[in-house]
Amino acid sequence: MDRSGLVRVKAEPFNAETPLAALREPLTPTSLHYVRSNFALPAHDGMLAIEGAVGRPLTFSINDLRHMPETTLPVTLECAGNGRMTMQPLPTGEPWSGTAVGTAEWTGVPLATVLERAKPGPEAREIAFYGADHGPYKGGPEVHFGRSLPVETAADASADILLAYAMNGEPLTADHGAPLRLLVPGWYGMASVKWLNRIEVRTERFNGPYQVRSYIYEWADREHQPVTHGRVRALITDPVPGATISPGRYTIRGKAWAGTTPIRSVEVCTDGGGEWLPADVEPALGPYGWCDWAFSWVVSGAGRRVIRARAVDAEGCTQPDAPEWNRLGYGNNAVLPVAIDVR
Amino acid sequence: MDRSGLVRVKAEPFNAETPLAALREPLTPTSLHYVRSNFALPAHDGMLAIEGAVGRPLTFSINDLRHMPETTLPVTLECAGNGRMTMQPLPTGEPWSGTAVGTAEWTGVPLATVLERAKPGPEAREIAFYGADHGPYKGGPEVHFGRSLPVETAADASADILLAYAMNGEPLTADHGAPLRLLVPGWYGMASVKWLNRIEVRTERFNGPYQVRSYIYEWADREHQPVTHGRVRALITDPVPGATISPGRYTIRGKAWAGTTPIRSVEVCTDGGGEWLPADVEPALGPYGWCDWAFSWVVSGAGRRVIRARAVDAEGCTQPDAPEWNRLGYGNNAVLPVAIDVR
Repeated sequence: MDRSGLVRVKAEPFNAETPLAALREPLTPTSLHYVRSNFALPAHDGMLAIEGAVGRPLTFSINDLRHMPETTLPVTLECAGNGRMTMQPLPTGEPWSGTAVGTAEWTGVPLATVLERAKPGPEAREIAFYGADHGPYKGGPEVHFGRSLPVETAADASADILLAYAMNGEPLTADHGAPLRLLVPGWYGMASVKWLNRIEVRTERFNGPYQVRSYIYEWADREHQPVTHGRVRALITDPVPGATISPGRYTIRGKAWAGTTPIRSVEVCTDGGGEWLPADVEPALGPYGWCDWAFSWVVSGAGRRVIRARAVDAEGCTQPDAPEWNRLGYGNNAVLPVAIDVR
Repeated sequence: MDRSGLVRVKAEPFNAETPLAALREPLTPTSLHYVRSNFALPAHDGMLAIEGAVGRPLTFSINDLRHMPETTLPVTLECAGNGRMTMQPLPTGEPWSGTAVGTAEWTGVPLATVLERAKPGPEAREIAFYGADHGPYKGGPEVHFGRSLPVETAADASADILLAYAMNGEPLTADHGAPLRLLVPGWYGMASVKWLNRIEVRTERFNGPYQVRSYIYEWADREHQPVTHGRVRALITDPVPGATISPGRYTIRGKAWAGTTPIRSVEVCTDGGGEWLPADVEPALGPYGWCDWAFSWVVSGAGRRVIRARAVDAEGCTQPDAPEWNRLGYGNNAVLPVAIDVR
């Protein structure tokens, strides 16, 4: 497993960001796609159990799943804590700078198809997904990583949730959840449980620590909320921070995405207090993938320039100029100034 | 004039930060000391006029001043807009990142001595200081750079305000106000008017634009305030942001200063949510100079680490964890996280 191209955040469990240069590509190569792990790489016996409030408890091997009708989707995944390091005050948690994001083509069986076969009872309320990875939660009792979805979401074929066994046309790598992971398009990455080996149909709310203690927006001034869908965000890939560029024409480029909502527009500001001007936005990489955008800038003068980009989604949501601070540092989609030198 | 070692922010008028490595030294070499200019380098005829509400209007040549009793003082100067670029939302103004600070030995005549000779009248209220530099203020009418001080401050010999003609033992350079500048220890840099050629004793408040429009804390939630003294701040010089260091013992180093107030202590935190531990603080470089501090860190583990330092001054003031946002982006003394890689 080649981790050498990644920007390491933690050695063990392994956590790493995508290098900015790799985010120029439409699809992020697997070896450069960000990795978020809560525990050491686990053993996985290649089996998936579906149990709980179901008419027919089932067990699938990966091979069984590979023989079912497959779906392939490009999906932009972003860590819920991405950009935590630029929140003020600095929240606790892994210090993600802003490139814990990537887009891969994921292949698997629709969750709705598999779930249907197990015949969830009418009393089913939530579906919990457990990974083979385990360890003490914040130094406390031993747990497996686990997350839940409302049954309506999990059973909704149009939500395109996958039991994914391949990434960019190859079997999953260990860092990305081999041999099987959940893939929840449009949600922050924590929903896409890696090393998936157990699905539990529940009649009561799931209250595992990664559902009710981590991945919660703990606002200072209003009720706490669970972290769910991704938020609208534009990322500048060219120029890179600290780049030196010459006066003349320069094409500023980047990506934009907004969870399950399409991107309507991207605007760019090349001057601290200046005007926001529209960028050219390419069609998105499917309903859950980012889009490329470009802005032709006529660079004049010399010195430090601060470039900013912001996206607007189809619902009219845009990015704040300052992060919406929350204690655990999630969902930072604030406009991120990029300083460069013109000479 | 060698500007090549500086980190340029604007080519014309020339504005530049001190490179971080130069901030390791007790005194900042003149060629590496940050430069803040509002207008092009002006011509200066080498004369200083003192006029207005005085018993005896006077004119001094630089040579006259050089023959008066001189004082030499190390003084830490910091730009009021230093750190503007890390404020969220991004304020308007020059995008200073955080190293628009430096300490030089300044030599000149005490302002109080010179002022006394002109015999300010009892109705004197403010003393205005004008530079030879001039231009349109924000695209509006032509002005000279000008700032005022209350007469009590200007006439107070113990405030150690200098009419400075030398920096680090050499005549002032053009970028630092040759042949003469005001030097107001403990105040943000805007008070230390460069290219000084006129002092006006006033019976009414001075309302030049650099006094009443710029250099004002425009708070969102309380009355505006003029920018005056510097604020308590610690700066990490080692390691530099993005450095790679090895496990084992590492000495974190930096500077700390607090306007006219001595530094009481410096604390360091080497772990996002972790403990703040005391650093060893060296004696300051005189009453207006920064002090060196050091913290012996036993580095373990591998991955991204976020280091922070904060200073406490003799009045118990410390640094906020987030900048106190104001529209024009002044006085950012928030704790600044420095990310490094341990491997």
